[in-house]
Formats: sequence, C-alpha cells, structure tokens
Amino acid sequence: MRIDELSSTAFAKAMEADPIVFLPLGACEAHGPHLPLGTDTFQPEETVTQVAKRVGGLVAPTINYGQHSSTLNMPGTISLTFDTLRSLVKDILESLHRNKVHKVVVLTGHFGSVHRIAIKLACEHATQHLGMKVMMLSDYQLALHLEKEICQGLEDGHGGLLETSRIMDIRPDLVAKERSHGEFVDSGYLIVSDPERCFPKGFSGDAGLASEEKGRRINTYIVDTLTELVRANFEG
Amino acid sequence: MRIDELSSTAFAKAMEADPIVFLPLGACEAHGPHLPLGTDTFQPEETVTQVAKRVGGLVAPTINYGQHSSTLNMPGTISLTFDTLRSLVKDILESLHRNKVHKVVVLTGHFGSVHRIAIKLACEHATQHLGMKVMMLSDYQLALHLEKEICQGLEDGHGGLLETSRIMDIRPDLVAKERSHGEFVDSGYLIVSDPERCFPKGFSGDAGLASEEKGRRINTYIVDTLTELVRANFEG
Amino acid sequence: MRIDELSSTAFAKAMEADPIVFLPLGACEAHGPHLPLGTDTFQPEETVTQVAKRVGGLVAPTINYGQHSSTLNMPGTISLTFDTLRSLVKDILESLHRNKVHKVVVLTGHFGSVHRIAIKLACEHATQHLGMKVMMLSDYQLALHLEKEICQGLEDGHGGLLETSRIMDIRPDLVAKERSHGEFVDSGYLIVSDPERCFPKGFSGDAGLASEEKGRRINTYIVDTLTELVRANFEG
Amino acid sequence: MRIDELSSTAFAKAMEADPIVFLPLGACEAHGPHLPLGTDTFQPEETVTQVAKRVGGLVAPTINYGQHSSTLNMPGTISLTFDTLRSLVKDILESLHRNKVHKVVVLTGHFGSVHRIAIKLACEHATQHLGMKVMMLSDYQLALHLEKEICQGLEDGHGGLLETSRIMDIRPDLVAKERSHGEFVDSGYLIVSDPERCFPKGFSGDAGLASEEKGRRINTYIVDTLTELVRANFEG
Amino acid sequence: MRIDELSSTAFAKAMEADPIVFLPLGACEAHGPHLPLGTDTFQPEETVTQVAKRVGGLVAPTINYGQHSSTLNMPGTISLTFDTLRSLVKDILESLHRNKVHKVVVLTGHFGSVHRIAIKLACEHATQHLGMKVMMLSDYQLALHLEKEICQGLEDGHGGLLETSRIMDIRPDLVAKERSHGEFVDSGYLIVSDPERCFPKGFSGDAGLASEEKGRRINTYIVDTLTELVRANFEG
Amino acid sequence: MRIDELSSTAFAKAMEADPIVFLPLGACEAHGPHLPLGTDTFQPEETVTQVAKRVGGLVAPTINYGQHSSTLNMPGTISLTFDTLRSLVKDILESLHRNKVHKVVVLTGHFGSVHRIAIKLACEHATQHLGMKVMMLSDYQLALHLEKEICQGLEDGHGGLLETSRIMDIRPDLVAKERSHGEFVDSGYLIVSDPERCFPKGFSGDAGLASEEKGRRINTYIVDTLTELVRANFEG
Repeated sequence: MRIDELSSTAFAKAMEADPIVFLPLGACEAHGPHLPLGTDTFQPEETVTQVAKRVGGLVAPTINYGQHSSTLNMPGTISLTFDTLRSLVKDILESLHRNKVHKVVVLTGHFGSVHRIAIKLACEHATQHLGMKVMMLSDYQLALHLEKEICQGLEDGHGGLLETSRIMDIRPDLVAKERSHGEFVDSGYLIVSDPERCFPKGFSGDAGLASEEKGRRINTYIVDTLTELVRANFEG
Repeated sequence: MRIDELSSTAFAKAMEADPIVFLPLGACEAHGPHLPLGTDTFQPEETVTQVAKRVGGLVAPTINYGQHSSTLNMPGTISLTFDTLRSLVKDILESLHRNKVHKVVVLTGHFGSVHRIAIKLACEHATQHLGMKVMMLSDYQLALHLEKEICQGLEDGHGGLLETSRIMDIRPDLVAKERSHGEFVDSGYLIVSDPERCFPKGFSGDAGLASEEKGRRINTYIVDTLTELVRANFEG
Repeated sequence: MRIDELSSTAFAKAMEADPIVFLPLGACEAHGPHLPLGTDTFQPEETVTQVAKRVGGLVAPTINYGQHSSTLNMPGTISLTFDTLRSLVKDILESLHRNKVHKVVVLTGHFGSVHRIAIKLACEHATQHLGMKVMMLSDYQLALHLEKEICQGLEDGHGGLLETSRIMDIRPDLVAKERSHGEFVDSGYLIVSDPERCFPKGFSGDAGLASEEKGRRINTYIVDTLTELVRANFEG
Repeated sequence: MRIDELSSTAFAKAMEADPIVFLPLGACEAHGPHLPLGTDTFQPEETVTQVAKRVGGLVAPTINYGQHSSTLNMPGTISLTFDTLRSLVKDILESLHRNKVHKVVVLTGHFGSVHRIAIKLACEHATQHLGMKVMMLSDYQLALHLEKEICQGLEDGHGGLLETSRIMDIRPDLVAKERSHGEFVDSGYLIVSDPERCFPKGFSGDAGLASEEKGRRINTYIVDTLTELVRANFEG
Repeated sequence: MRIDELSSTAFAKAMEADPIVFLPLGACEAHGPHLPLGTDTFQPEETVTQVAKRVGGLVAPTINYGQHSSTLNMPGTISLTFDTLRSLVKDILESLHRNKVHKVVVLTGHFGSVHRIAIKLACEHATQHLGMKVMMLSDYQLALHLEKEICQGLEDGHGGLLETSRIMDIRPDLVAKERSHGEFVDSGYLIVSDPERCFPKGFSGDAGLASEEKGRRINTYIVDTLTELVRANFEG
Repeated sequence: MRIDELSSTAFAKAMEADPIVFLPLGACEAHGPHLPLGTDTFQPEETVTQVAKRVGGLVAPTINYGQHSSTLNMPGTISLTFDTLRSLVKDILESLHRNKVHKVVVLTGHFGSVHRIAIKLACEHATQHLGMKVMMLSDYQLALHLEKEICQGLEDGHGGLLETSRIMDIRPDLVAKERSHGEFVDSGYLIVSDPERCFPKGFSGDAGLASEEKGRRINTYIVDTLTELVRANFEG
C-alpha cells in the first residue's frame, strides 16, 4: 500500500487495477509550544493511510515540507518558496502520469492560502495538460466541519483545539501536558513584514481543552468523510 | 532528535547548543524486483539516525524524492527534475540558515551523478552566500569502501549485493527471498533516450549473495565512518 | 491626482508630501450576459478615485488584466498567468519604491484566489525587501459586508446582485436590461479541466434584483470603509 | 468596440466577423516638465480608437506600463522589466488566441528599443507558434514621416515638437503653457549607469513650437496611414 | 594579448595595468552563397586584434554564436535564444568583474536588433550593478559611416558590398568568385513567421562590386575609429 | 569541414550526406603557471579537427567558455553558470536539429563534474525530445586510459603531466619552460567556499616530466580511439 515499500515489480502489478494514488503533503512548521513541528505531516499521513486501506489505493511517499507565511520567522519552521513547492508537486504528478497513474488524491496537512495555491496550480497542470483526475484538499478543511460541535463557539485555528486533539489521538507522546490559550490578531489588509505578529503565542485557540477523545472523533469523521468523497469522485 | 517531533519551543532550546543538523535525502526509485522503491530512503534515514545519536545532532525531515536518469522509465520511479531538486535543497538550507543553523550534513541515499550535482549546487549556494558549513555525501560512497571485501571481485552496483544486504539489515521484511544476478550494460558515451537499457534486469550485481550479516557489517561501517568524518569536520 | 495626468515635475512636487499611492487592478473577464467584460476594472477605478480624493493620494495607472481560472474558457476573458501577474505587480512596486513612494494601497476588482495570491506575493516582496508599507484588498471583500442586507439570504457571487448593482451605479450604460438568475455549481475538491462548469450561466446570483440604488448604497459604503481603513493604517 | 465595454455574449457575437483586435500599449514615463506622464498612453489609445472605428475592429484594454531605459531615474517613470513586458504581451496574445482572435495590431506609444524588442519577441511567439497574424509598430514611427515637414530641420525627439503637438490635440488640458527647448546628448557607445544624462531637461526638441494644429495634422496623418496599412495587411 | 594564450600567472600580471578587455561576439549565420557562415566572427575578431594591439588591451575568447531572426531558417544559421545570449554575456562580464577587470569593449559582428538588445541588457547589468565601464557596439555600425562613399547610393545590407569587401580583405580564401546582387524586401510592420522572405537571395546589396581594396579601406577605417573611440572613452 | 568557413550554400550541400557534426567545448580556465588559460579549448579543437578529417564530419564553431568550480577564484578563469551552459548547448543542438543534423559528437576539453552534467542535460533533451543521436565525452577521459603508462604511478590531474604533454604537442609556444609539481588536496566531503584550496599551486601532477613526445603519444591515441568510437556508434 505504501509505494516506497513495494518493489518495482509489485508496483507494476498493483498498477493493473488502475488504483487511486494518495499523495500526502506534510510540513515542518511551528505549532505553538505544545505541538510538534511535524503536526501537519502526522495528520495527513494518518488520514491517507486509513482512507487508502478502505478504498484500496496506494500511498506515495510524503512531501515533508511546505510553504509558510505567518509562522515563517518562528523557531523550527522550514519553508519552501512558492515556486519550489509548485514545481515539486508538478514533477511528482508528471512522474505518476509517466507511471500510468490516472487518479490522484493530494492531501495537505498545512492549510495556508499561498501553500494551497502552489499545489493547486500544479494539480491544474496535471488535469489540463496530462488528463489526470486529481482531487486536492486539506484534512483541516474537513476538521472544520466539526468546529462548531467541538469548539462550541470558541475561536479556534492554527495549533488550536482541533489540531491539538487530533495529534493527541495520533501521536499522544508528542503533545505537551501544559497547554494554554492562544489568540489570533488580525492585521486587517496590511501586508506585514513580521507576519508572526498575528500569533502572539504561536497558535490560536484553546489547546487546554483538547483531548484524545475529541481527536478520535475528528479523525474518524475525516477518514469517513474523505472515504466517501473519494468514492463519489472516483468510483461514481 | 527528530526535528518534526520537537515543538517550536524545544527546537529553539536545542538550537542553543549550535547543533549539527542532518538532512537525509531519499528517493522513490526502481531497485530491481527484490528491493523496495524506498531503498534509497531507508538507508540514509537509518544512517543519520545512528550518527545523530552519537554526535548529538538534530535530524531534519527526509526529502523523499530525488532525480533519476537510468531508471526513469522503470515502474515505480518518481523523479524530480534537476531544477526542482536544486531549489528544494536550496530552500531548506536557507530556512535552516534563518533558524541560525550553521552546520549541516546532507546525506543522500541515491548516488546518481545528475542528482548529486543538483544537491551540490544548492550546498555551494549555502556555503558561499550564507556562510554555512555543509558536508555532503552519499552513504553509498562509504559502502563502496567495503566493495572489495564484500563483493570479492564480483561486479556490483545499483540494487546489487551491497544495497540488498543493507536493506536486509534495515528492513528485512521488504526484501524478496528470490534474488537473482543483474548486469550493467555500458552505453559508452552515447546519450541514449532509453537509458534503462543499461540495467536489463533493473539492477546490477549478485543480489543472491546478499545477507543480513553483510548488511550489518556495511551499515556499522558506514555509521562508524560517518561519525568520524562528521566529528573531524565539525568538531576539529 | 491621476499620475498619468501629472508631468514629471508635478509628480516630483506631489511626492514631497509623501502621499499614498493607489494602484487599481482591473480585469477583462466574462461576467455573464448582462455585465461588461471590464466590470472588475470599473469598480476599483471608481473606488480609488473617490478614496484618493478624500485622503489626498495619487492614483497610478490601472493594470487592466488579471489572472482567471473559472471563467478562463468563457468568451472575452483575457487572462495572465500567475507568474506574469506577480512580476507585473512586483515591477510596479519596485518602480514606485525607486520614486520614493512609501505607502501603497493595492485594490483589485477581481477576487479570484490564485489572482490574489500572485498579487500578495508581489506585495510581500515590497514590504519585506523594500521596506514599503502596503495594504492590499479587493473592493469585493468590502461589498460582502453588505451581502446580508442587500441579498437578503439569496446566494450571490460572481456577476450577481452585488456586482450588477455596483456597475448600474458606475456605468449604467453598460448593463443589460434583461437580467436573469445564475447558479454556482460546486466541484467539491476536484481540480477540473473545465472549471467553467461551476457557472452554467457565466455568473451566480440574482442579477434581476439589482438596481442603481443598491449599487449606490454599496459603492458609498465601500468608499467610506476603505477611506477609514486607509486612514487607520497610514495615518494612525 | 472597446472590449471592456462588451458583455461576454456581445463579444462572442462580435467574434463571428473575425475582427481585427487592436492592443494599445501605453506607458507611465517622464516626458519633460510640459507633458503628462501618460503621454505614450494617450497617443496610441486615440489612434486605435479612430482606426478601429474605420476598419470595424475591437480595442483591447490598454497595457498602461512599458519598459524604460533612458528616463528610468526621472520622477514619475514606472518601468517594467524586459521579461515582465514580454510575458505580459505573450499572455494576452495567447488569451486572444484562445478566444479565436486571428488578427492583431499591437500599437505602442513608447518607442524605446528594449521595450519594442520585448513586444516583438512576444509577437513572434504568437505568429510562429499560434499561427496568428500580428502587426506591430509604434505610432511614433508614423509621426516621424512628418518630422521633416513639421520640424523643419530642427532636431526632435522624446517629448519634443511632434509629441507635444499631438498631446495638444488629444489632451490640451494636460500640456503646460511654458515650454522650452531640450537637447539630446549622445553617450556614444558607452553603456552608462545614469542614462538620464542624455536628456538634461528630460526631453529633446523644441516644445515651444508645438501647436494644436500641428498635432491635428500629425494625428490625422497617423490615423490615415495606419488605416491603410491595416487594410493592406489584413484585407489584401 | 589573447587571454586564452596567457597563463594564469601571466594574466594576473597583465591585470596590474588595469587593461581594457575586448570581448568579440561572432555568429554562425547564413550570409548568402558567397560569404562564409563565420562572416560575423571573422570581422570583429580581426578588429579587436588590431585595436587591442594599439591600445594595449587584452582579448577575451570569442563568443562564436549569436541570436538570429531573419536568417533563422536559412541553411547553416545556428541561433541562440535571446535569454541564453543575455545570460552568456552577463556571466562572462561577471567573471571578468571577479577578475578585477574594470573596462570592457564588447564588439559584435552581427547587427540584429534582438541580438544587440540581449547584449545591451547584459552590459547594463554590469554597469549598473557591478560598477564596470562598458562600451558596446557593432563594427558594422562603423562600416556604415563609409556606406555612402563605398556603395555610392546603391542599397546595401546583410552580406552585401560592405561585408563582402571586408571579408575579401580578412579571409579572401573564403569568398566565392561568383557574386550576385541581392535585394531586401520589407515586410512592413508585419511580424512574419517566415522572416527569411526579406532576403530572397539570402543577402542584400551588390556583392559583385566588392573588392579587397574596398575591404581594406573599410577595415582600416573601423580600426582607426574604434581605437579613437576607445581612447576617448577609457583614457579621457 | 569547419562550418564557419562554409557558405550557406556549401553547408546545405554538405548536409546531403547526413554528416556527423562535432561540437568542441573549450574553456578559459587557470591551469597553473605553465599552461595557457585556453588549454581546454586547444585540446578538443585539435582532436575534433583530426577525427572529423578521418570520418568526414563537420566541425561547429567552438564554445569557448565552460563552468568552473575549483578554479573559479584563480586569475584568468572565466566561468559560466550551470544554467547558462546548459541553455547554450541546448540552443545549439536545437539549431542543428532545425538544420536537419542528426548525429552530433560533443567533445569537451574541461572535465569538471558540474560542467559535464550541464552539457549532459542539454544532450539528453536533444536525444529525448528531438530524436537526435548524440555522443558526449571529454578527451580527458580518453587521455586517462594512458595515465598508468605515461604517469607511471605518479598522481596526475588538472594541468598535470597528461595535459601539459598534450599542449606541448599542440601549442608548444604556450608552455612555460619552468614547470614544477603540483598537489591535489582533498576537502573530503566538505562543500567549501574557497574550493581553490584543493590546488595550492593551481594544478596537480608533475608537469616537469611532460614532453612533446608524450603529448604526441596521447593525442594520437585520443584521435585513434575517438575515431573508432565515433565509427562504432554512428556507422555501426
């Protein structure tokens, strides 16, 4: 199921079924003092593993780096430029195309707008010029469906209640016991040179309210929902 | 020790010791019918984990894709272009520099000449323009020190006796029991459009002679040697 | 006040007051059968003219083309690529910087996400590398503040009630008498090669309910709000 | 006739006649103390409006910025780089091609050699790779036909007698009453870093001799001549 | 005097005098049936050799390829793209700068407008960003000073009387005995996809009237004039 | 035989035989105090001249510049960037393709690894996308066949015994009488910012043992061997 664990021969055989290939995009990004830098890697990796199991797809090796704006200057954030990220996804999709892959689900853990547009342009290239069928989203977008239920009206965001709960379910060993509340400070329409000002504590939301149970609820929901979406789009 | 498992706060604290950062470069590349596509990922990941433990360094998230020429058209190879790979390594080194990292060891599992020049140019940028101290090599180069001893005069190469043995030590579950002998067919100085012709079986060397013991011998040697090299270069 | 109507000498004199420069970005884009292709040009041009009058700024020549995705294949849409648009805005900001301009308001009529990220990256370059103070938004974002009041729960969007009303106020001669209702059809997370499928009629919203009065209400609100935002950001 | 004033539907209808599309290229460039920065915008806009009326073509939105060398450091000049300008024209021609436009007249007000080569390369791309028929010139080239008659042996050039007269005809409100004589100082074959040295007063020619009548004579000549050229090339 | 004939040590010694470096740009371009493809290489090489002798400068290795438009599709023309030529000259000027060269004369045999702008942009980079003093011209521009005298009112141009005479002086062995008269056919302002139509015979001018004596007269004039120009610009 | 000495007509005629075209790549690079900067130009030029004579091919104009790493900061080295060199070779191969050339031998005097990868990528483009048959090597690779015989166990390398002997055969006037012994100092796997440290004297090997006779022996061997290789690859 993991492409990197298959031999070339086994991969060729698996390709006969015209499988869906899942491409997880992670990140190395500051997520406050309580979450690991790989938060946005662990989430989509777990998600695609579960969904691929259910729909019988293959999982490509993770892209471990993304593009970051607001957390760029925080310790531990490693960021690609827009152009590099776009080329990276474009090259991988082209190589999958050369391997006769027709169906791809690109799932990014990081939800930054610049980051997603870079990925989107690469995916558009694949659909418009290579004739591939590509679905692209962030599991964070699906997590947001539960924001009302889980956060109960509290503001939440980067490294907040939703994400902390999810990591407590996936990698409980990596979440700090001490967890506080972080605020998001809007810069309005100013393009600022110190974008980290919008996260004075490095994250936003009440991480103290996070729990493994909530995380399991969210992760289960995401896997269920993505499985349905994938089936609807590729098996319809 | 793994950067993606540290929080932003823990990373900032670890940086106070001015640690060496190890950047492992993997690949998704056909290695014959007996080895997994992630062969060149598993090897440097294992190596940097061991060496970083000994010298007290940090391990950055793995780059899971590389540039491939001769195996480009074989099932399962996913290749970046030269320019993308160069940009990718360049961006990561620049982000490490922004994080005040001064010492980097770049270890690539894949040993292709085009691949290594892309990485080398990115490293040169970091040393010449950012003032970083960068060491760059392939663990395959160190494995070759033992070629004479291990292969005993038999021709060896991509996916052959050395690599198969190493993976038998690291990920025995991923190596096929049936393993044959592959040949390398030289194209002379012709630049061919079907470069896979040089590996009629997808690999070269006698994979049948590989063993876990040989792999352990090689892997131990590599870890020992790289540890010494790193200490000589960064602690001298 | 319009830079293109000033002589070089008059411009130099006007620069002594360290004025805010407004850069309007238009578009040539299909907006349904009832609105002109220049809809996204006429709106920000009118807005910056009014706001510049109030705060005493200068208006740079309009960029008359933008980047388009969903309407790309509709008659009359002329689209730049992402890279060209980013370079275009970057070059202009650099030239303004060479002219000692410190404060810029970039106002785009078109609200596409790819389009705005291209502009945003150019603005970030100017704030991070040139030390300029840049505000960037779409007047459509401000119009949305009134969506509830004006559209009364009806879905609205590209070329819909808000935009049609605004153009009826600005250029009534260019709005068709016959105006129907258009729907937006979501593609979910599929990256499609025929993105125009999301606007079966080329626009979304009930254009039939548009009126000059509503347009005046919206345009007045936008000018008032932007004037305040500009003052808060640049005169605070 | 102005594309930005047509709806998508009206544009589609107009395209049935396989019309010539006129693309005016303006500039924001210092033209001495007596002429507006938009001088090179007002001239081709007026020209294509008149010619398109006569031959029944469509007028695309103006590109309001160009590439500038000698006036780069003068107040008010806003310059694109060579690469941006080339991409800009290339993208627009490709979008026109996607809209099934076959015949294009590109008219640039600015006559700089670097500027024109950027445009020319974009046009060559369209003729060689897209099969379009493209005519490209500057109205200044046609104005030069009358230099002998109008300037009577006096040296003339950038912002001089010809241009000043033309703007007095087109936008008399924007021409200063006080107008002097400017010189062109040749730098020989030196590539200088202060190219503005060639226009000590920011323009060359005797602007004092300019008149609305002369401007009308020139503008009429240009419209007549361009109309003939367009007919000869596209209707022949 | 030829840099490629000096050792590194001898070059370092020669640099103590802060010498002028001459960079000749040649071409491999069709020049009709009577002239060699290297016509535009032989001319500037001969010129810089003579001038460097007189002013005591160094001659850099020749760039043997240029950018070609009108002769692109004729047998034997080998053309660089605009971008490659610009980068090539830029890189060489940067390397000369690293070698502490301050004064450069760039002499191109080919006189195409696109070709020269590519070179000019590279030279502008060197003067504006590296502080070098750069003179750039084509020896053809100096030959044109004698056009009236030599051609006596006959139209002349690419591969015509001037160029043929010059090559008869420099490389008489490479000029055909049979030489005819070629015409230049103007395409007006059309950007054509078959630009070779402007030279039905591959050249323009009366090559039959060419002679070694005329060539010597022209070549002597060029060397004298360029020597003076160089002295005026660099020794003044 | 030299393309630059043929007329367009003669070139067209020569093309009827579908000849092999030889493209020599030279360099302007420090080769110690005893060898000229053009060492890597003189060697392949001489080689291709001899081989082309024997197999009846054409010789394209020499590329006189290459990419340099270790000697970059030594007096007289003029280096292209990787990207420029790749584009340069790519453009020339594309122009040869436009001229219906099918068989190319690219021979580079310089043997740097970055340099050769740039050339290789350009050649791969030609074979994979243009269907050309391309052979690419360095004559230094062939000289190495004789290293054991000529150097008798002495370390040799850049500017050493092999190269000095070859130039003594080709251009004896350019080799210094005084010649010493140079060492190569390995930097291990460090990417250094002062790569010239690896050649303390600017070259490596015992240049004092060089002789014209040895050079003749090597050069003859190279011409013979390359002739055979070319015949085997293109006439087989």
